[in-house]
Amino acid sequence: MSRITSEDGFLTLIDRHFPRRHAAVPLHRGDDAAVIETPGRVCLTADLFLEDVHFRRAYFTPKDIGCKSLAVNISDLAAMGAVPLGFALVLTSPEDADATFWDGVFSGMAGLADALELPLVGGDLNRGPSVALAVTAWGGPGPSGRFLTRGQGRPGDALFLVGDVGLAAVGLFVLEAHGRDAIPDWPAAAAAHLRPAVRVQAGLALAGIPGVRGLMDVSDGLGADLPRFLAPGTGADIRLDLKALHPEVARHAAALGEDPVRAAFLGGEDYALLGAADPAALPDIMAAAPGAWPIGTVAAAPGVSLNGRSVTGRGFDHFESTPCSS
Amino acid sequence: MSRITSEDGFLTLIDRHFPRRHAAVPLHRGDDAAVIETPGRVCLTADLFLEDVHFRRAYFTPKDIGCKSLAVNISDLAAMGAVPLGFALVLTSPEDADATFWDGVFSGMAGLADALELPLVGGDLNRGPSVALAVTAWGGPGPSGRFLTRGQGRPGDALFLVGDVGLAAVGLFVLEAHGRDAIPDWPAAAAAHLRPAVRVQAGLALAGIPGVRGLMDVSDGLGADLPRFLAPGTGADIRLDLKALHPEVARHAAALGEDPVRAAFLGGEDYALLGAADPAALPDIMAAAPGAWPIGTVAAAPGVSLNGRSVTGRGFDHFESTPCSS
Repeated sequence: MSRITSEDGFLTLIDRHFPRRHAAVPLHRGDDAAVIETPGRVCLTADLFLEDVHFRRAYFTPKDIGCKSLAVNISDLAAMGAVPLGFALVLTSPEDADATFWDGVFSGMAGLADALELPLVGGDLNRGPSVALAVTAWGGPGPSGRFLTRGQGRPGDALFLVGDVGLAAVGLFVLEAHGRDAIPDWPAAAAAHLRPAVRVQAGLALAGIPGVRGLMDVSDGLGADLPRFLAPGTGADIRLDLKALHPEVARHAAALGEDPVRAAFLGGEDYALLGAADPAALPDIMAAAPGAWPIGTVAAAPGVSLNGRSVTGRGFDHFESTPCSS
Repeated sequence: MSRITSEDGFLTLIDRHFPRRHAAVPLHRGDDAAVIETPGRVCLTADLFLEDVHFRRAYFTPKDIGCKSLAVNISDLAAMGAVPLGFALVLTSPEDADATFWDGVFSGMAGLADALELPLVGGDLNRGPSVALAVTAWGGPGPSGRFLTRGQGRPGDALFLVGDVGLAAVGLFVLEAHGRDAIPDWPAAAAAHLRPAVRVQAGLALAGIPGVRGLMDVSDGLGADLPRFLAPGTGADIRLDLKALHPEVARHAAALGEDPVRAAFLGGEDYALLGAADPAALPDIMAAAPGAWPIGTVAAAPGVSLNGRSVTGRGFDHFESTPCSS
């Protein structure tokens, strides 16, 4: 396909991938604003997915870009225990991103949207210096009627994860070093970086378990996100066993002579769910959320320990460094 | 002030300008998603405000940038006849945009948000190649219970505007040519480009007049937006009288040897409201919406005429040219 020379050409491409009919969208794309039917309480999140900051065209396929740009937002809704309801998309396209590229992006995005029956209700298209996708997504409460938030864990609560940590950071490292040639050797790590799992069903199931007190998604690494998750005045005693880490995390750390547990603790962008719960609820949690595993306990005093040693290191701050440029 | 070196520094600056308490926001910024209370039906819009595409730092003050980035979204809600309820903000900051700059941006944005009692519920901060602000805003229906949409005019309906057309295009032209030195000579035109009016009260009042059939905001110019506003199969006979145009539009056209009526018809970014109504409602409209003026009639056949002559020219297409770079 060729260069997109008009806004109408872009809109036609979007119409091909995203249906204009949805029961909860009385007025779809094309007016000054969309009209959507909403429950009385919704949760809403907005995240940017920006070329050379969050992804590189060198090793993300257009489908990967489309899928992940939506997935990182859906992960925030999953971490609220919410049912995703819809999204809006603002994008910029540089001159060298042609219709074939955008067809792939929209295809990847529509794959995830279709699986969740999510309408794209509108947004804004612009020329810009690089490929950028800013998604705003919203969701409603599930059958439990509640959203899961941060700052809810109590001393003695169990801390648990749903999903791996440290795996996407390995993916980033090997993709930066070798591009897509790294994929055969590091299939799980590359997939964790290129196409992170969204855990909507797990989030919903966890919201339905009364003993689950709070939930967030680990986007900047467990080390950086734990302090944001804990209630003021509390801390955490984290126990990460090498055997519980993904084999690719262990193999990569061995190759670099690094501590695999520390790498797993600091690595960002896995979008695992981090929860706090009454320890008595752990069996229910592990049955309801495949991939759930206990990682420690909420402590009665501030500070975080990892396998018995106090840690001060943090993960990823967007204004200190970026995962692609570091 | 100095360079912003951490995400926390940025968040502190945002907290200083945007209060964290709002009756309709049970869970404010800082979690995976915000939780907002919503009416059963909301309208939602998202627009990007991008450096060197929509504005230049050479002649927009930081306050102008903050104000206009929100205003263009609020204008979409006004054009729905909606009550604005809240917004989310995604931004990118290049290295050379420091805390003083962002303090000004947030101050300008908060000025408009405070006037409308709008909460900033969350968003995303990133380093990026240029200053970009992507706002998602939403609103609910006013006392009339309805939203005003496009495609509703019937043959014989009156077409009307609330606000000037062509004025912001003059502002863009003179600001591009002379920077802020142009302001004393072209105060209204420069203001129309730098700080467009938002017509929330007018939109709400119009939604309350049963004879008003539909409304949109004219962002790309009357020539480009009329075809988007008219119902399929209908057209428009537009009558623009030189005397009804802003004196700065007439003066600028005279200086360039251009037709002022054509300039007013094609000029974009005024964010005037364009409406269609039963002609019998015109007195009510002009009483309820200060600045409203009739501009013609919906025709029974496709095509647009301007002062009796058929027009084919269009306004502004983001993928054909941009207002700042053309």
